[in-house]
Amino acid sequence: MPLFDLPRDALETYLPERAEPTDFADFWSGTLTEARAVRREVSLTPFDAHLPLVEAHDVAFAGFGGQEVRGWWIHPAGPQPGAGWPVVVQFLGYGDGRGTPLDWLSWPTAGFATLVMDTRGQGARARRSGSTGDIGGSATPHVEGFLTKGIDDPHDYYYRRVFTDAVLAVDMARELPGVDPTRIAVQGTSQGGAIALAAAALGDRVAAAVVNVPFLCNPERAITVTDTKPYSELLEYVRTRKGDVERAFATLRYFDGMTMAAHATAPALFSVALMDDVCPPSTVYAAHNHYRGPKELVVYPWNQHEGGGDTQELRQIRWVQDLFGLQP
Amino acid sequence: MPLFDLPRDALETYLPERAEPTDFADFWSGTLTEARAVRREVSLTPFDAHLPLVEAHDVAFAGFGGQEVRGWWIHPAGPQPGAGWPVVVQFLGYGDGRGTPLDWLSWPTAGFATLVMDTRGQGARARRSGSTGDIGGSATPHVEGFLTKGIDDPHDYYYRRVFTDAVLAVDMARELPGVDPTRIAVQGTSQGGAIALAAAALGDRVAAAVVNVPFLCNPERAITVTDTKPYSELLEYVRTRKGDVERAFATLRYFDGMTMAAHATAPALFSVALMDDVCPPSTVYAAHNHYRGPKELVVYPWNQHEGGGDTQELRQIRWVQDLFGLQP
Amino acid sequence: MPLFDLPRDALETYLPERAEPTDFADFWSGTLTEARAVRREVSLTPFDAHLPLVEAHDVAFAGFGGQEVRGWWIHPAGPQPGAGWPVVVQFLGYGDGRGTPLDWLSWPTAGFATLVMDTRGQGARARRSGSTGDIGGSATPHVEGFLTKGIDDPHDYYYRRVFTDAVLAVDMARELPGVDPTRIAVQGTSQGGAIALAAAALGDRVAAAVVNVPFLCNPERAITVTDTKPYSELLEYVRTRKGDVERAFATLRYFDGMTMAAHATAPALFSVALMDDVCPPSTVYAAHNHYRGPKELVVYPWNQHEGGGDTQELRQIRWVQDLFGLQP
Amino acid sequence: MPLFDLPRDALETYLPERAEPTDFADFWSGTLTEARAVRREVSLTPFDAHLPLVEAHDVAFAGFGGQEVRGWWIHPAGPQPGAGWPVVVQFLGYGDGRGTPLDWLSWPTAGFATLVMDTRGQGARARRSGSTGDIGGSATPHVEGFLTKGIDDPHDYYYRRVFTDAVLAVDMARELPGVDPTRIAVQGTSQGGAIALAAAALGDRVAAAVVNVPFLCNPERAITVTDTKPYSELLEYVRTRKGDVERAFATLRYFDGMTMAAHATAPALFSVALMDDVCPPSTVYAAHNHYRGPKELVVYPWNQHEGGGDTQELRQIRWVQDLFGLQP
Amino acid sequence: MPLFDLPRDALETYLPERAEPTDFADFWSGTLTEARAVRREVSLTPFDAHLPLVEAHDVAFAGFGGQEVRGWWIHPAGPQPGAGWPVVVQFLGYGDGRGTPLDWLSWPTAGFATLVMDTRGQGARARRSGSTGDIGGSATPHVEGFLTKGIDDPHDYYYRRVFTDAVLAVDMARELPGVDPTRIAVQGTSQGGAIALAAAALGDRVAAAVVNVPFLCNPERAITVTDTKPYSELLEYVRTRKGDVERAFATLRYFDGMTMAAHATAPALFSVALMDDVCPPSTVYAAHNHYRGPKELVVYPWNQHEGGGDTQELRQIRWVQDLFGLQP
Amino acid sequence: MPLFDLPRDALETYLPERAEPTDFADFWSGTLTEARAVRREVSLTPFDAHLPLVEAHDVAFAGFGGQEVRGWWIHPAGPQPGAGWPVVVQFLGYGDGRGTPLDWLSWPTAGFATLVMDTRGQGARARRSGSTGDIGGSATPHVEGFLTKGIDDPHDYYYRRVFTDAVLAVDMARELPGVDPTRIAVQGTSQGGAIALAAAALGDRVAAAVVNVPFLCNPERAITVTDTKPYSELLEYVRTRKGDVERAFATLRYFDGMTMAAHATAPALFSVALMDDVCPPSTVYAAHNHYRGPKELVVYPWNQHEGGGDTQELRQIRWVQDLFGLQP
Repeated sequence: MPLFDLPRDALETYLPERAEPTDFADFWSGTLTEARAVRREVSLTPFDAHLPLVEAHDVAFAGFGGQEVRGWWIHPAGPQPGAGWPVVVQFLGYGDGRGTPLDWLSWPTAGFATLVMDTRGQGARARRSGSTGDIGGSATPHVEGFLTKGIDDPHDYYYRRVFTDAVLAVDMARELPGVDPTRIAVQGTSQGGAIALAAAALGDRVAAAVVNVPFLCNPERAITVTDTKPYSELLEYVRTRKGDVERAFATLRYFDGMTMAAHATAPALFSVALMDDVCPPSTVYAAHNHYRGPKELVVYPWNQHEGGGDTQELRQIRWVQDLFGLQP
Repeated sequence: MPLFDLPRDALETYLPERAEPTDFADFWSGTLTEARAVRREVSLTPFDAHLPLVEAHDVAFAGFGGQEVRGWWIHPAGPQPGAGWPVVVQFLGYGDGRGTPLDWLSWPTAGFATLVMDTRGQGARARRSGSTGDIGGSATPHVEGFLTKGIDDPHDYYYRRVFTDAVLAVDMARELPGVDPTRIAVQGTSQGGAIALAAAALGDRVAAAVVNVPFLCNPERAITVTDTKPYSELLEYVRTRKGDVERAFATLRYFDGMTMAAHATAPALFSVALMDDVCPPSTVYAAHNHYRGPKELVVYPWNQHEGGGDTQELRQIRWVQDLFGLQP
Repeated sequence: MPLFDLPRDALETYLPERAEPTDFADFWSGTLTEARAVRREVSLTPFDAHLPLVEAHDVAFAGFGGQEVRGWWIHPAGPQPGAGWPVVVQFLGYGDGRGTPLDWLSWPTAGFATLVMDTRGQGARARRSGSTGDIGGSATPHVEGFLTKGIDDPHDYYYRRVFTDAVLAVDMARELPGVDPTRIAVQGTSQGGAIALAAAALGDRVAAAVVNVPFLCNPERAITVTDTKPYSELLEYVRTRKGDVERAFATLRYFDGMTMAAHATAPALFSVALMDDVCPPSTVYAAHNHYRGPKELVVYPWNQHEGGGDTQELRQIRWVQDLFGLQP
Repeated sequence: MPLFDLPRDALETYLPERAEPTDFADFWSGTLTEARAVRREVSLTPFDAHLPLVEAHDVAFAGFGGQEVRGWWIHPAGPQPGAGWPVVVQFLGYGDGRGTPLDWLSWPTAGFATLVMDTRGQGARARRSGSTGDIGGSATPHVEGFLTKGIDDPHDYYYRRVFTDAVLAVDMARELPGVDPTRIAVQGTSQGGAIALAAAALGDRVAAAVVNVPFLCNPERAITVTDTKPYSELLEYVRTRKGDVERAFATLRYFDGMTMAAHATAPALFSVALMDDVCPPSTVYAAHNHYRGPKELVVYPWNQHEGGGDTQELRQIRWVQDLFGLQP
Repeated sequence: MPLFDLPRDALETYLPERAEPTDFADFWSGTLTEARAVRREVSLTPFDAHLPLVEAHDVAFAGFGGQEVRGWWIHPAGPQPGAGWPVVVQFLGYGDGRGTPLDWLSWPTAGFATLVMDTRGQGARARRSGSTGDIGGSATPHVEGFLTKGIDDPHDYYYRRVFTDAVLAVDMARELPGVDPTRIAVQGTSQGGAIALAAAALGDRVAAAVVNVPFLCNPERAITVTDTKPYSELLEYVRTRKGDVERAFATLRYFDGMTMAAHATAPALFSVALMDDVCPPSTVYAAHNHYRGPKELVVYPWNQHEGGGDTQELRQIRWVQDLFGLQP
Repeated sequence: MPLFDLPRDALETYLPERAEPTDFADFWSGTLTEARAVRREVSLTPFDAHLPLVEAHDVAFAGFGGQEVRGWWIHPAGPQPGAGWPVVVQFLGYGDGRGTPLDWLSWPTAGFATLVMDTRGQGARARRSGSTGDIGGSATPHVEGFLTKGIDDPHDYYYRRVFTDAVLAVDMARELPGVDPTRIAVQGTSQGGAIALAAAALGDRVAAAVVNVPFLCNPERAITVTDTKPYSELLEYVRTRKGDVERAFATLRYFDGMTMAAHATAPALFSVALMDDVCPPSTVYAAHNHYRGPKELVVYPWNQHEGGGDTQELRQIRWVQDLFGLQP
């Protein structure tokens, strides 16, 4: 049945209880303090993409644990505008890598500088190649994939490293030459949406968040309504490791998009697709409905995880342009 | 078995006999003469894509039978270079539509003007929406899809209309304001590659052809080695309409990429993927090996129909930049 | 879950609101008046099927737009009964063609003349070959298949042509030599059921309607409960063409089996299968419950889209024989 | 790859060695002598199918072991022709049952009497229901399905019972009232083709055999080139019962269509489909090429197991009409 | 949706009406009296499995109709304990066979003797080979597989023979040399769970029942919530044999695990998996909730038909050890 | 086609060139010297599995990098035989974990002590849970799964850590109390077979190797003949990371089972399944044919990756018993 989740009116008021760990704030402030302590110089290497309209740089910075994280830094050719570059920091979908600058022309063409951050360890399958490994490893077994890596302990969990990388990416973007530090947006779709939510919640002075069909919101519910990839990794985990289920759920509560949403205050544009069986609509509404800042939700009633596709792509550009006072 | 077609050394010398109809040239010159006779004014409507680095226009021109064909005309903002815009005319994959200007930023960012042509009737599923209907209809039944529409008679065949649209698109591009008529390339992937081959063979003064994993080459062989979409439409047709098989094959010979290749003289860059079960490698080699102009073939030994992906995307940009003497 | 739609008791009283366009009657009377104006002579060519018990003719008549529609006209060998032949006009399932007379022996063997009408454009895949093209084309893109062809405008919509063909087929049958014009039934399964409903609603003096697991009833609901072919074509359409959704739904309301049912008065025999995920039971009940004439519904509680199979085939023959006063 | 078996020229001369058991003739003459010894009266019950053009009877006769086998006996209404009814005995595909007389109108409408024989135990799934159980059971385990039932021993093997039923059906048909005993054809598709081959080889005075895409020919080869149902049952058997493989193959040699073919002398019409992955073409050619009587082979180069469909249905009717001197 | 059945709280009180046939007790006492009358000597043949820690015997006994049923009898090497061997009689899942003694080492290593009973006819596919045929056959057609064999009549039904075999296996176990007849448990998973329930209900003095994710409980509901194998066999049956549905359901009521449960009094350990789409949780709860003896239910909230896997395997050993007063 | 690889006679002599890196021996001696340097005490914790016939211990030892690797140490209850325990070190299939002692009763019941080694990081899906994480991480992205983790550099490659763990496991087993250090066999299936081959090649004084349908032999060929899991991970990698292909293949040459085979001298029992599309037969023959020690190959002509199943399980027990002079 294509429409498999809650009815639309129930979705609109769906506000499941968040089981925020009591030490949630401490956990993250400790993590970030430690991470920022080891921060080193950013490396920006000009990359000749043969694209005269833009300037592209291969960027490398110290992420979680001081490990190198790679990305692209792309902005229109020529000098920055008077106020400095408005910036969009982009996060990637599951399994995706940063690919080439050709993949990231929308925001620069729309007048923004963009920072595209690799998701550590990802980018070896699917259409775009990544350049960042995940040094961390995991003290316990995990399902093939990344969702359950280190899920036994929030300190060891894979997304602790990823979310920290994201906050550090925002930190870095703010200090790149020519940037307007007051106009930094975070943006992502699916896993990228989850990371954007985390960056909005945990990062400093994020000015806007664009969150499409986000992953990792209310995962405990997600695996009762969908068994597609990548939530299926969690399902396989709890099916196999019966004694570790509660611990896994406890870990996830430090990373749940619902809770991130409740801590984020920047204006946000969400999108949701009502037939999305990868990131089920109730889990997206859960995050949106808990979101603490000003927010807007674009609903695609007939779509699956492709969400609003290029309709939403146009819309999010215009929304950030408006918010940042750009005249296109 | 991922490697299902001929071994690589056999591919390199594979040159199947082309059964070019004796009236091939007449068929197409008659078709094009008639089509050009009804040509009307082009309509160029500025499209506000909120992308300050480029200028985008919604273009409409009279295609086959004078019917409206839509597309995008996008080039860098600002005046054309002294010699006029070098142009890349892009054709689309099966089922795809022109989408939005956001989908076509690579060539403009690389310094080209680009004309993106809708494939009539297509663009109602998959990720990008089209804006062009196919008025033609078909005097005989066809399999759901476009490959067998009107296949009973070359004059009624769907691709007669599409290939004519393509030649007219090149005609039109040549006359758009600011264009350098000596530097017009055609480009396409899969179905788009088939159309690009046809435009290179049948169109006037095409300066370069970029043909990725092209469809519609040696289709009679294709359906003995693959049964995936969209060749499967042809397979379903010949399975059902047993009395019409020879007639269908006879029609296809007016549209076969192998024969188009043998009539094209512009420098060409091909790419092929050796595990491609959508457009099997032997059919791509058949077109490449018959190609009459200067040619280069990029081989992706491990890939399926995704071909070279963004690796090839970068490569084709550089190849056309070099050929056209652009300094990126 | 095999039983995926509403519970049976809810089905029995399920009467969703019909959003009948205000100009529904005008739309169809205009369409039919125009169609009948261009009506030409029927061509009946004896077809030697090597079947001495029946007489078969290859029939061609002017359908929508005066375009040729083909079919079979088959009746028992020998002279008609005193009152003339009772007739069953049969319409086909999605993708099917008229095949050969061998496929249509049930009604003649049961004492009826039968007219089997090709569905224009269909019959190039699946088991039976068609002989009728769809000249019309479509002014807008459509999903591979027929369901969304011209869906942007009721005047351009594919089923406007098909339903008109059906009404003209009934007109024609009434005037064929030896026919009893007071005993003409329409019959169809799946898409054929939708056409039969339309013929019963829009045609003249249809004496009976046999409607098995009909397609195209309440399609807007259908695509919330099923995503199998061919409703999936509509789902793909609304997923891709987000701005055209309301227009597509508006078009469909001129063709919805629920509304046809509300306009039909001939005695009708329906059948429904409660596990049918191609034409979901709630959509069939919607049509049945809105049906204005005398009606009977046969429920197959465990079946999918195969419906009642040969059980229902026997039953419908007996039902029409009884209704028409034939003594078998 | 749709064309997966031997190339066509190799097929045409393909004549694999038959490993005919030395006691093949004794095995079958012993089996049939014993079976005929218990033969009892046939029961013919008029069946009111509401089909005035034909007369239908529900037939029951004593098959293997004296067990009741059911079928239909259908012929044109009215008296037989002077020479008596020409008869076609029809055997069914895997899993199929005799259904209703509506399913078997082709041959009667073409002027034949037909006897449709249930395949014991089958007819509880798929579109047509059977009425005959298989009392026999099996002394050893078998894969779900019928192909491996009793395969450990030729005397216990399921098809020993089925083939015996078939010979007795031909015996019975010959003695039914009004029959011309010199014009009895056997016909079948897939499993039905295998049974028809056996009846032609083992039965008395069969005048013609029509064998479409037959099953059970050269099965030891079949399971190296296909793993679809029902050959997959044999594959599962040999995968599980590693110690019983040779015994199973030894049993199958008493039932192999290749060997039946080498013993049959009636004129035969075969058909084969070159992309048939259910009954692979090499196994069909193996039977055809070994066939001892006059023979003709119709090749469908593009089809799968649907074979020639209604094209072949028309063709086989005309072939038998010609052979039997019927003037249609 | 992974969680597809009733919500957990509804499951806990789910107590669907049992339609126990009025002659249920007579049917089974008649069946068993007759079966026990023909009982013959048991054959125990030492089997050299090269496993010095245990003693294994190939066992053969007279099951239903006096037909030979095979199994393994395995216990720790050396003499039995003073009280005699505590015994676990194990029944197998659908399609499975007794395999080799290597497959059944858990209970012997845990200090029990075990009797593993073949399920007649099964064990020719999947991982373990069986050695027992099903002589019985069936007077009516059945779907490939065993679930619908003889379903037209409770006396002819396949599971009448299997459940009788099971009761006789328990009878036999009680009399094997060295056995403690007061400590005989029955155990099974899926089909084996259904057989264990039947043995507990119908057998003499069963001391414990271990029933994991049992099959054949409330099958009439099962086929409304799942269509996977093997319940799909029943679904195919009722879809095809529309006139035989009520009779089939009437037969099943003599074999329904819900009713068996209501007749069993031994302490029982059940397990259920809430995402089990092979034996849906509501059908398992139905049996558990109707169970008449002391009972315990282990719930695996995230699992499918694999149930509790080796977690449950350990648990059931400890449960029986505790119940039987073994000190591990 | 079930038989998809080389014909059997070609397999028997198939000896593809090994591209052994010139520093293969140095690479591994360096790796092992370093690994052994950090070796720490083994921890053996009695585990109460409630299984009186055996003694089970939860074992933890320092694997690669000194990281903890877990396993089971299980032997018959009671004192070791005079010569000490003969030992089988078992390695696991892809994704599997050590589970519980119940899973590993075959070798102990057959008179052996067994050491079951977790494969680091694995054991979070499928039927058995693991207890060992993979701390290592990877400096480059990898496909979900383990096959491509660190594949950019042999020093960073996942299997460097795993194979080192395996050698250390053999080292440890040799020194466990009561062990006969001259009778240590390694055993594994699929991935376990690859690890066993590596342990036989790289470890000290391994007395026997049992290698079933091994993974990781000639992987560069494997991905041309199969695209199933887990080789598909490598295929996805080379499809995405086009620039890293040669480097990945270069890394794999340090881990290729063909080369391990050429360095191993212990007597070996291999098994291969000719229809195995997970570990294709040509890759298994490649390892076997290159194997340097005495060897025996058991061929299962009809099986897929399940290989010989319990037939092979019995066979390997007897083979090791014979080799080690055990009298069962």
